[in-house]
Amino acid sequence: MSDTRFTKIAFPLADVYGLLEPGPVILLTTCHQGRSNVMTLSWLTMLEFEPPLVGCVVSNRDHSFAALEATGECAINIPTAELAQAVVGCGNTSGADTDKFATFGLTRQPASQIQAPLLAECFASLECRVVDSTLVPRYGFFVLEVLEAWRDPALEDHPTLHHRGHGAFMLAGETIHLPSKMK
Amino acid sequence: MSDTRFTKIAFPLADVYGLLEPGPVILLTTCHQGRSNVMTLSWLTMLEFEPPLVGCVVSNRDHSFAALEATGECAINIPTAELAQAVVGCGNTSGADTDKFATFGLTRQPASQIQAPLLAECFASLECRVVDSTLVPRYGFFVLEVLEAWRDPALEDHPTLHHRGHGAFMLAGETIHLPSKMK
Repeated sequence: MSDTRFTKIAFPLADVYGLLEPGPVILLTTCHQGRSNVMTLSWLTMLEFEPPLVGCVVSNRDHSFAALEATGECAINIPTAELAQAVVGCGNTSGADTDKFATFGLTRQPASQIQAPLLAECFASLECRVVDSTLVPRYGFFVLEVLEAWRDPALEDHPTLHHRGHGAFMLAGETIHLPSKMK
Repeated sequence: MSDTRFTKIAFPLADVYGLLEPGPVILLTTCHQGRSNVMTLSWLTMLEFEPPLVGCVVSNRDHSFAALEATGECAINIPTAELAQAVVGCGNTSGADTDKFATFGLTRQPASQIQAPLLAECFASLECRVVDSTLVPRYGFFVLEVLEAWRDPALEDHPTLHHRGHGAFMLAGETIHLPSKMK
């Protein structure tokens, strides 16, 4: 549980890669037939800068798979380390028999372009639409376009969680700056 | 430049996801027609646990693209923060006109199953073969199978670099442990 609810404002699509490229654990929300769900996920990568394309793996063993396939919509919510218990809780339970929002104290907010909810306790949220399902049968690999991005501007750093397996999470450390021509 | 050369031993394939899932910047090495090259990359994700499958984006604007496409082989080398200058250097230059190994003090070591070299200054290296090129034309997205993994067992933590864009890198912080049923 976390008491922090962020106030997110629109965030430039061209800068979305900077949120996802460092590899944070994310909370993926879906909504299907009036029922929303949330799952923990960290198999994702940027595929294009702008419009931002993101590839992510949702297995057909995950309860969210059916909702994602049927609606073609989801939100990527990025939690801070403060949400570690909810992140692990959402990973250890299934939406088939658990209301994870109530159980782990996650507050739903309406998105602007999709039915899936955004999470108030996450500092950034990305509204996404599935644009390519070619590799879904083979790897559960969905290509998502980010339609709209939201981020709390008050949070300077990104105190994200990074999954190392078996309950081990690396916390984001300090940020250094180097002269770079890389985007 | 870094004076640290790691002594890597074989690492279980089933544990490879723990190296890549947190989202480190990697150095990708290739070798084509007797000429090796190295590029900086952080658009990659796990796709399967075992055998480990990794998806990574190499653009056709990258000099390494032709080598990767022609040979179907590469190595993923994971640098520590100590290698930050070389990581940025490899990202700012092209193998078309620069011997990046000499310029940035990177030492090549022979791999066991592929022609591409492993980097002595990286604490872990993964020998990979391209197994699926379906999404290469659309996104430069190569699916790699990790054939063999190497890691220095003396390095307890993974002091990795995580790219946030425009020369900003997040350093890996401490690792926390939570009760988790997640793999």
